[in-house]
Amino acid sequence: MAETVVADALRGMAAAHPELAVDVENRVIIRGDAPVAGKVALVSGGGSGHEPLHGGFVGPGMLSAACPGEVFTSPVPDQMVRAAAAVDSGAGVLFIVKNYTGDVLNFDMAAELAEDEGIQVAKVLVNDDVAVTDSLYTAGRRGTGATLFVEKLAGAAAEEGMPLERVEAIARQVNENSRSFGVALSACSTPAKGSPTFDLPAGELELGVGIHGEPGRERRAMMTSREIADYTVDVILQDLDPSDPVLVLVNGMGATPLLELYGFNAEVQRVLREREVPVARTLVGNYVTSLDMAGASVTLCQVDQEMLRLWDAPVRTAGLRWGM
Amino acid sequence: MAETVVADALRGMAAAHPELAVDVENRVIIRGDAPVAGKVALVSGGGSGHEPLHGGFVGPGMLSAACPGEVFTSPVPDQMVRAAAAVDSGAGVLFIVKNYTGDVLNFDMAAELAEDEGIQVAKVLVNDDVAVTDSLYTAGRRGTGATLFVEKLAGAAAEEGMPLERVEAIARQVNENSRSFGVALSACSTPAKGSPTFDLPAGELELGVGIHGEPGRERRAMMTSREIADYTVDVILQDLDPSDPVLVLVNGMGATPLLELYGFNAEVQRVLREREVPVARTLVGNYVTSLDMAGASVTLCQVDQEMLRLWDAPVRTAGLRWGM
Repeated sequence: MAETVVADALRGMAAAHPELAVDVENRVIIRGDAPVAGKVALVSGGGSGHEPLHGGFVGPGMLSAACPGEVFTSPVPDQMVRAAAAVDSGAGVLFIVKNYTGDVLNFDMAAELAEDEGIQVAKVLVNDDVAVTDSLYTAGRRGTGATLFVEKLAGAAAEEGMPLERVEAIARQVNENSRSFGVALSACSTPAKGSPTFDLPAGELELGVGIHGEPGRERRAMMTSREIADYTVDVILQDLDPSDPVLVLVNGMGATPLLELYGFNAEVQRVLREREVPVARTLVGNYVTSLDMAGASVTLCQVDQEMLRLWDAPVRTAGLRWGM
Repeated sequence: MAETVVADALRGMAAAHPELAVDVENRVIIRGDAPVAGKVALVSGGGSGHEPLHGGFVGPGMLSAACPGEVFTSPVPDQMVRAAAAVDSGAGVLFIVKNYTGDVLNFDMAAELAEDEGIQVAKVLVNDDVAVTDSLYTAGRRGTGATLFVEKLAGAAAEEGMPLERVEAIARQVNENSRSFGVALSACSTPAKGSPTFDLPAGELELGVGIHGEPGRERRAMMTSREIADYTVDVILQDLDPSDPVLVLVNGMGATPLLELYGFNAEVQRVLREREVPVARTLVGNYVTSLDMAGASVTLCQVDQEMLRLWDAPVRTAGLRWGM
């Protein structure tokens, strides 16, 4: 039911993941062994409906805690402060904030409150979506797929024992090196509304869509996977000129079959070869979703040797796991 | 495009997973280090459109190779023979076959052909779906979610070096100990057809749906997550009376948001508690999908200590990964 959808999901997550500490009442997902002595803690969060982001990225090698808001609605400062207090070992906490007005305001307030409680807090803003500047919910660029890269690389840095200022610098560098662009083939339906949140006629695409269905750059008649890849990678490369290899995320918005996502990845890789962009690693799947929206996004993140090592480092979360 | 959807996906999979050997032309996905000396090999396959099943389950600890057919269409014997020849170390090959008429016939023929080439072949049929007996494409029960458990547990047994007859016996036991039931909230659209493959009006559910949208037991007006969980677990437990703990798979059909799947899992776990069925492990996600169908299925698999150990054993595939 719409009123209980987030609490229900948290109960279901707790049942499936005994390695996590899920506080259903206060809406905080915490890695079970937190606080980890001497380790910088990472806290993120945002509106629900983008799963596995962020709760599915809590665990060794990635986030220390996540705060889910209502569907497509920012969590509140109290959740963030509670999370920070639960995971801080004394080494400080990094807040990872997607650039939406509500999230930014609430994490700012939470940082002040946490500092009042003696917790050292740093913040990094994720704003990788090149589709539009200023949008519904956002001043400046929106935060989308790069959030996964920021959480993974900064998470690995923290796990290695790097100090807060270094973890923060890496998170910032990952965001600066990342660009995303998304395409919708259908709208999504929120539990509260129960019907599509925006109108996208069958046979049309929204190029540059946001992860809440915010409008993009333009609407067009249906394009082939090949044409979408050409358009998407071109837009990204207008804004990013990678000299180093890139991490590639080909991300499903929720309702696009994995079969089609892999096919789309083949086209994305073709364009990257044509544009002579070397690819270090590729991840294909549903990671930063928009409920049941059909569509996909591409995120590129330029990486140096250290960043690549942090990407490859072990991670154990519900949504991303390797090496342990 | 519909004509190239499987080949496109294989090219995209090859690009994302350099650890796999993907033969795009002949449509076989093979773990990169095959054949592994002295190890029994596992080969599965079936129509495409159920990803990550089966190609996403190829790798150490699970399948040696997978053969994808066209969308919702059995692969051909030539693919299976080629896969068997590529992965057989001399220790024999187990074919894991979902119970659909085309798959059964083609794997039977492939087994004969492979044996003619001197490869020892055993077969296990997966038929866990309690919804209906005999169906579109199937005589007897359909094979659905239990395929994941069969491939994981038999894969772990093979990785431990067990001989073919033992791996086959474990696969058979997993199937016998497993039951599934699925519910659709929408139809799915195949690339070839481009529109829903069956008619399911908004606001109605198909109870007992198959993974190709085959009809189930009955159609009803929309039910709550709680009601669906009550119905689903009840139907399964009419056919399975577990004395040992169960593995639980709460599986998305493709287009159901992970947020809702976790909420559904909370209700499934509630019913299992009420029915005093002990739960050993729970997996929630999109694993045995039906393109963009909205819906979910539940699979229970009763496990003894050895089976639980095999479930927990390390696995490294695109779709399921832990411990390495």
